[in-house]
Amino acid sequence: MMKLYYGVGSCSLASHIALEEADADYEAIRVDFRANQQQSPEYLALNPKGRVPTLVTDRGVLSETPAILAYIAQTHRAAELAPIDDPFAFGEVQAFNSYLCSTVHVGHAHGLRGGRWADDPEAHKAMKAKVTQNMTDYFTVIESRMFRGPWVMGEKYSIADPYLFTVANWLERDGVDIKKFPGVADHFERMKARPAVAKILSVVSATA
Amino acid sequence: MMKLYYGVGSCSLASHIALEEADADYEAIRVDFRANQQQSPEYLALNPKGRVPTLVTDRGVLSETPAILAYIAQTHRAAELAPIDDPFAFGEVQAFNSYLCSTVHVGHAHGLRGGRWADDPEAHKAMKAKVTQNMTDYFTVIESRMFRGPWVMGEKYSIADPYLFTVANWLERDGVDIKKFPGVADHFERMKARPAVAKILSVVSATA
Repeated sequence: MMKLYYGVGSCSLASHIALEEADADYEAIRVDFRANQQQSPEYLALNPKGRVPTLVTDRGVLSETPAILAYIAQTHRAAELAPIDDPFAFGEVQAFNSYLCSTVHVGHAHGLRGGRWADDPEAHKAMKAKVTQNMTDYFTVIESRMFRGPWVMGEKYSIADPYLFTVANWLERDGVDIKKFPGVADHFERMKARPAVAKILSVVSATA
Repeated sequence: MMKLYYGVGSCSLASHIALEEADADYEAIRVDFRANQQQSPEYLALNPKGRVPTLVTDRGVLSETPAILAYIAQTHRAAELAPIDDPFAFGEVQAFNSYLCSTVHVGHAHGLRGGRWADDPEAHKAMKAKVTQNMTDYFTVIESRMFRGPWVMGEKYSIADPYLFTVANWLERDGVDIKKFPGVADHFERMKARPAVAKILSVVSATA
């Protein structure tokens, strides 16, 4: 059985939902960030980066959301969570997920995690001040140039959908009104209505 | 024929090398960052993010280094640039590349591109001041926990290698002595000796 190490409010929600959508055999284990468990020797032995998600498989450990999502899709083909036999279509999914990981998540993190990139508290304030504009800019690109509808990649639900949902879920605390982005906002509501998503939101909030 | 849009000194070097290693049918087109070509209407029509690399294929456009690298490996199987029939081993390659993209590249970018995340020039100085420490921390994790040798993933060269080479190439300007990381330093020299790498370095520097 696989083990997913997750954090409440973190990007691990995307992998958590994908495992549930794939009907995977997994156990979810919460990493308590308030207790700094992600920096414990036991956790760092699994994931030296001290971040979530971490997926422990019978072959070993995987980290990084885009890698875990692609792995779930490739090992649970019946769930059809990515066009894994079409390298170009798969590349589009990966490009979308990589943008969320390396640009959008990073932009969001400057609101609360400025200490990663500067020691000066004044710099943290300056970073926080730019989060709303950056997230607005990123979602403008997503809404106008990337999101196809009804799902991210068009007619087929994929591993891009739980990841977009996870990141869109941060917009409110980043000071962005999701209604500015009608496609993303509609997607967000339809995601919440999916049984797998509702179940995982309930499981995660129960451990918060 | 594919078209790769690249920038001098940028992360597009990884995709450029991978295309050459794959013996792909491609044309490389320089995007002149000094002339701000990445923000031109023509370029933004291809890639609304205004970044490199952008790969134009006969199916459409791909962006984001991890996505492009996986696409090159999947469409040029003879070059054996990734374990694409083994989802776990492929996931390890992807996890490595995603870490470079979302953490290491981002850490480096705080040295020269602080304006992405704050408007205050004092904040940019504070970000720049932390780059050497952050890059040292990231490469300590790479050297001690990720890099297997002689190539990133062990005995087989893969798409993780040109990407590590590209990012390691930034260490000097980030104030980090690569010799602190013997595995990465040895890898860097062996990469430069590969004919495909030497050729692409020569092509890129001729256009700089």
